Amino acid sequence: MKEVGLRPGERIDRLYSNHIQIIQSDEVFAFSLDAVLLAAFADVKRSAKARIVDLCAGNGAVGLFLSQKTHGQITEVEIQARLCDMAHRSVQLNQLEKQIAVVHADLKDSLQYFAKESVDAVTVNPPYFPVQATSKKNPNPYLAIARHELKTNLDEVIATASALLKTGGKLFLVHRPDRLPEILAKLQANRLAPKELQFVQPRADQDANMVLIAARKDGQVAGLKVKPTIVVYDEGEYTPLIQELLYGNR
Amino acid sequence: MKEVGLRPGERIDRLYSNHIQIIQSDEVFAFSLDAVLLAAFADVKRSAKARIVDLCAGNGAVGLFLSQKTHGQITEVEIQARLCDMAHRSVQLNQLEKQIAVVHADLKDSLQYFAKESVDAVTVNPPYFPVQATSKKNPNPYLAIARHELKTNLDEVIATASALLKTGGKLFLVHRPDRLPEILAKLQANRLAPKELQFVQPRADQDANMVLIAARKDGQVAGLKVKPTIVVYDEGEYTPLIQELLYGNR
Repeated sequence: MKEVGLRPGERIDRLYSNHIQIIQSDEVFAFSLDAVLLAAFADVKRSAKARIVDLCAGNGAVGLFLSQKTHGQITEVEIQARLCDMAHRSVQLNQLEKQIAVVHADLKDSLQYFAKESVDAVTVNPPYFPVQATSKKNPNPYLAIARHELKTNLDEVIATASALLKTGGKLFLVHRPDRLPEILAKLQANRLAPKELQFVQPRADQDANMVLIAARKDGQVAGLKVKPTIVVYDEGEYTPLIQELLYGNR
Repeated sequence: MKEVGLRPGERIDRLYSNHIQIIQSDEVFAFSLDAVLLAAFADVKRSAKARIVDLCAGNGAVGLFLSQKTHGQITEVEIQARLCDMAHRSVQLNQLEKQIAVVHADLKDSLQYFAKESVDAVTVNPPYFPVQATSKKNPNPYLAIARHELKTNLDEVIATASALLKTGGKLFLVHRPDRLPEILAKLQANRLAPKELQFVQPRADQDANMVLIAARKDGQVAGLKVKPTIVVYDEGEYTPLIQELLYGNR
């Protein structure tokens, strides 16, 4: 096991299903189920030639999980230096330096790092909440930037993904269901045809609190599939599907 | 029990949960689960002052079911004379002539029957399938018109609903999930803000094959809710929710 230093407040979490270790911090950034579900949902090519970019990468959880599904090159783009540092050390911890690069950049500058329309897949777990004068933001600046559209917004995220993706390339996005009409409209305005939706409900009898969206660059708009809804808890325990994603087949 | 004549091929079906009897015909028109779910989903006002219009009414199933949820006036609009006749006899059979009217009309002529922006709720279970040169249509003309956009289309349905609804009035629509992006865009282009979605899956592990949509005239676009997914079958039997809708609490 490679030795990688931890900073105060950091811990190492492990996803048993794929033996990936991730540096986490409740004070700075800790991935949540959204990232696990996004990586599971993202149907990336296995080929070593695949080029995959994870925007709003945070501590790099999505890229680390994806490394188990593809031999392709993964680049994690994150605007917060402190989170890039965590992501970079997690890559080292898992000895994935050859497969995963971490780029400290504002996503709207992505085309300085990749040729236009050169990428096979983009994944993104962006900030969910619009910034309004009245909205309560997290007083912790790391978490506020990750959750609120302070440094980027849906327009920029979708325009950037579209600029990166080659024709036929796929965007995999996780977001809040209440923004679905806006997301579908912006996708179509940016040459991205929505192809799959999958909703996530905390419980079988509760409203969805997450939606996973797959879109194809220059794809046909007809033919959206709505995949089986994912239910997270049943009687206070993770459902079998979620248990398998988190812990693997034991 | 009122005596109402049946024509060849017709039968009377009954929804045990609400003691409604409906004249059905496999050769002409028989309501299906779509109509039951739409009526259950439609959150109509109870008041006797409520004005409710059901477009693409078919044999009038949705209007009949709704009569159990409201004291308001319900008008069923249907383009096919043969189906209007069935709907009218079902209204008589249930002695609901004072509450339900059946209008034989093309929905785009609706404003000849109602004042513009005068209606509290519109329900519609429209034809699901676009007409393409290559698409196979049902050889039975009654069923072809009910299922394919031969006599109307999504644009007309949504524009008509919007013209009928007063500010704050609600549209309740059932359709196919593959047309969701188009539906959401057309709603917003017609002053109808999507407020609720509810998906229906045949089984817990199958893609959704129906979506219920609630939209509010001149409502705020923010704040879409995605209600708990409805699953129809579990191990070959109706789930408890569907059993209750079809048979009531026994």
